[in-house]
Amino acid sequence: MRKIIVQKFGGTSVADTEKIKNVARTVIREKENGNDVVVVVSAMGHTTDYLVKMAHDLTPTPSGREMDMLLSTGEGVSIALLAIAIQAAGYEAVSFNAMQVGIMTENVHSKARIIDIKTEKLRKNLNEGKIIVVAGFQGVTEDGEITTLGRGGSDTSAVALAAALNAERCDIYTDVEGVYTTDPRVVPNASRLNEISYEEMLELAHAGANVLHPRSVETAKQFNVPLRVRSSFKLDNLGTLIVGVDKMEIYKPVAGVAADSSQARIVVCDVPDKPGTAATIFGRLAKENISVDMIIQSYARKVSNTNDIAFTIDSSDLAKTISTLNALKAELNCGEIKVDDNIAKVSIVGAGMIDRPGIASTMFETLAEQGINIRMISTSEIKISCLVDKDKAQQAVKALHKVFELECNEVADVKGTLPDV
Amino acid sequence: MRKIIVQKFGGTSVADTEKIKNVARTVIREKENGNDVVVVVSAMGHTTDYLVKMAHDLTPTPSGREMDMLLSTGEGVSIALLAIAIQAAGYEAVSFNAMQVGIMTENVHSKARIIDIKTEKLRKNLNEGKIIVVAGFQGVTEDGEITTLGRGGSDTSAVALAAALNAERCDIYTDVEGVYTTDPRVVPNASRLNEISYEEMLELAHAGANVLHPRSVETAKQFNVPLRVRSSFKLDNLGTLIVGVDKMEIYKPVAGVAADSSQARIVVCDVPDKPGTAATIFGRLAKENISVDMIIQSYARKVSNTNDIAFTIDSSDLAKTISTLNALKAELNCGEIKVDDNIAKVSIVGAGMIDRPGIASTMFETLAEQGINIRMISTSEIKISCLVDKDKAQQAVKALHKVFELECNEVADVKGTLPDV
Repeated sequence: MRKIIVQKFGGTSVADTEKIKNVARTVIREKENGNDVVVVVSAMGHTTDYLVKMAHDLTPTPSGREMDMLLSTGEGVSIALLAIAIQAAGYEAVSFNAMQVGIMTENVHSKARIIDIKTEKLRKNLNEGKIIVVAGFQGVTEDGEITTLGRGGSDTSAVALAAALNAERCDIYTDVEGVYTTDPRVVPNASRLNEISYEEMLELAHAGANVLHPRSVETAKQFNVPLRVRSSFKLDNLGTLIVGVDKMEIYKPVAGVAADSSQARIVVCDVPDKPGTAATIFGRLAKENISVDMIIQSYARKVSNTNDIAFTIDSSDLAKTISTLNALKAELNCGEIKVDDNIAKVSIVGAGMIDRPGIASTMFETLAEQGINIRMISTSEIKISCLVDKDKAQQAVKALHKVFELECNEVADVKGTLPDV
Repeated sequence: MRKIIVQKFGGTSVADTEKIKNVARTVIREKENGNDVVVVVSAMGHTTDYLVKMAHDLTPTPSGREMDMLLSTGEGVSIALLAIAIQAAGYEAVSFNAMQVGIMTENVHSKARIIDIKTEKLRKNLNEGKIIVVAGFQGVTEDGEITTLGRGGSDTSAVALAAALNAERCDIYTDVEGVYTTDPRVVPNASRLNEISYEEMLELAHAGANVLHPRSVETAKQFNVPLRVRSSFKLDNLGTLIVGVDKMEIYKPVAGVAADSSQARIVVCDVPDKPGTAATIFGRLAKENISVDMIIQSYARKVSNTNDIAFTIDSSDLAKTISTLNALKAELNCGEIKVDDNIAKVSIVGAGMIDRPGIASTMFETLAEQGINIRMISTSEIKISCLVDKDKAQQAVKALHKVFELECNEVADVKGTLPDV
């Protein structure tokens, strides 16, 4: 049986017709390797920004449903043009939007989750030898409503398609050459990783490494889809392969360092110390589809029998969070609600830290040496995150990248050449 | 029961967000009149040209299927923006593409015909008080393939929706103020008709009056949908109402004069005079979806026992027609195939000519007085068309418009003010 490769190209890779011809060549190269190919594309270049701008010319608050209708047209253009470019090169191709494929999502606008993907039409067309071009970022509900998957949605579409089709691999083509130990714009001698585990990538993604959206990595992990991040422009560079941690040999305790400046910290002060208050706050925020990241609850004050609950959210949810909390204020009987968006979260990530003690203390010492104050700390098995002042984030990343020996000349190619899976 | 009004706005009416706001106001005005409103819109301004250009950057011959995928995105943008604009003005609105509504067409790309329109979703949303915005120009096949309806497709979408919903009226908003006795750019004192019958409009449309595509008028006639052509910008002007001929009083033998310069004449020379040759030629052309307009077959030549078959087609079908005929040449055993696209068809149209003799001879005499040679003639009950040299077309129109007394100062408002139907 022929192997299926899912390829995904982002907006910059299809920004104009010349670039679309380039993508067609990359697609055809994979087809010529003897594989069946399903290609997922995003909207061309700045299309989405342009559409959003027009909507905002009409109202600052367009409805989520109509925004999804509007934005989904962006991929409609790029899929048709890519199919035309592939056909022009002499290969059979067919484009499908999410409704035609049946990329079924929950009924939530602007950040829906994929529930199911129908594979019948895809398999039929692959069996006919066609290259299939699918619109990323979009889905459809059971009622025929168009939805979009939110940030990084096209990556998620590609991984979900790879899972549904039991694909050999999902290649995410992008404008970077792979996953780096940290943002190369901040630390020029950051090194590209040949391999990284889903778990590490997930923590890195959550920590603000913008290569892949966490949801796409989660989906890949869940269905054990090998994921490769590689450059659209340097095809000989195999990028970074993301696989299960069981398939990797681990050399270093820390795989990468990341900073995320897009969060805001909220402190709900003087919350009466009784059971259920945290559940009330975070239950209500979850109902509003607001994701909460770090959470810290202080010890209850003996005298007032109250405590403070601090947490971080994505800044884009700030307005909604504040209005949700204000609506809860009477019910909670709490004090002031403080907001601070002058913060950044700096994280170190590595599956290798599990059985190596002292990693956390090295991190805290390093930050202290730099005179950087730690405002909140959260940890997982393979990640340690510290909240610091926003203007200290880059300094923190540089120091941590150095102390955990992630520089290019020291770690480059330790794992040898990446096998051609 | 509330009445349903279908409104259609073309690309120039929704060319930018300011114009979309204007359209929203016109839509809301109709809603405020106490009617249910379904709005059909075309793609914004030059969107379609822009999309076609990108496809042609990739190949001169993009596939029909992918072109339909591509072009259908244009209306996807305008429907969402119009729905957003209506919502911004405080009214409930929802946009649907053809796939969501179920505008079912035959499985032909780039000029599909509508077979059926599902009304369930439309009625449900109208009953909820919503203004519905539907994508014109596009349809979907039973297999979920996206189709487009070809030139004037959005008008056809609007009329078909009006028919399916048993609407009170279908208003076609455009950049002209109605249907004129002839093209006002050619004859400045052409007069706007308050009323015209479907049959006359159909002949005028076929004769090159570009206000409405014949297919939309045919559909309106078939389902007896009152159709009004009116200006997007001058809302107090009620434009031209197109209704059944039985509902009209007829004052003049000729209602309008039109010229069509988009045709080409083909002559298939020396076709053996035996049964079935015409059927072979026109059968094959029909199979290629090429519409033939005027047809003339000469008397058979006694000696050679052959004749010439001349006919006209739309110039855009010229290349396809020639390749189709060349492929038939051996089978037909015919001579040369001559092409002439330096022609124009000039027509006079009027339900009033049915019981008034001498109209044709007046037309021929008028052209003769102008020194204009007639190359072919075809007639219907309410139309007489003459093929003339392209550079004589305007002169012919002016002379005919004058001789049949269609000037503004003589015919304006003879039928009084148009009732508000």
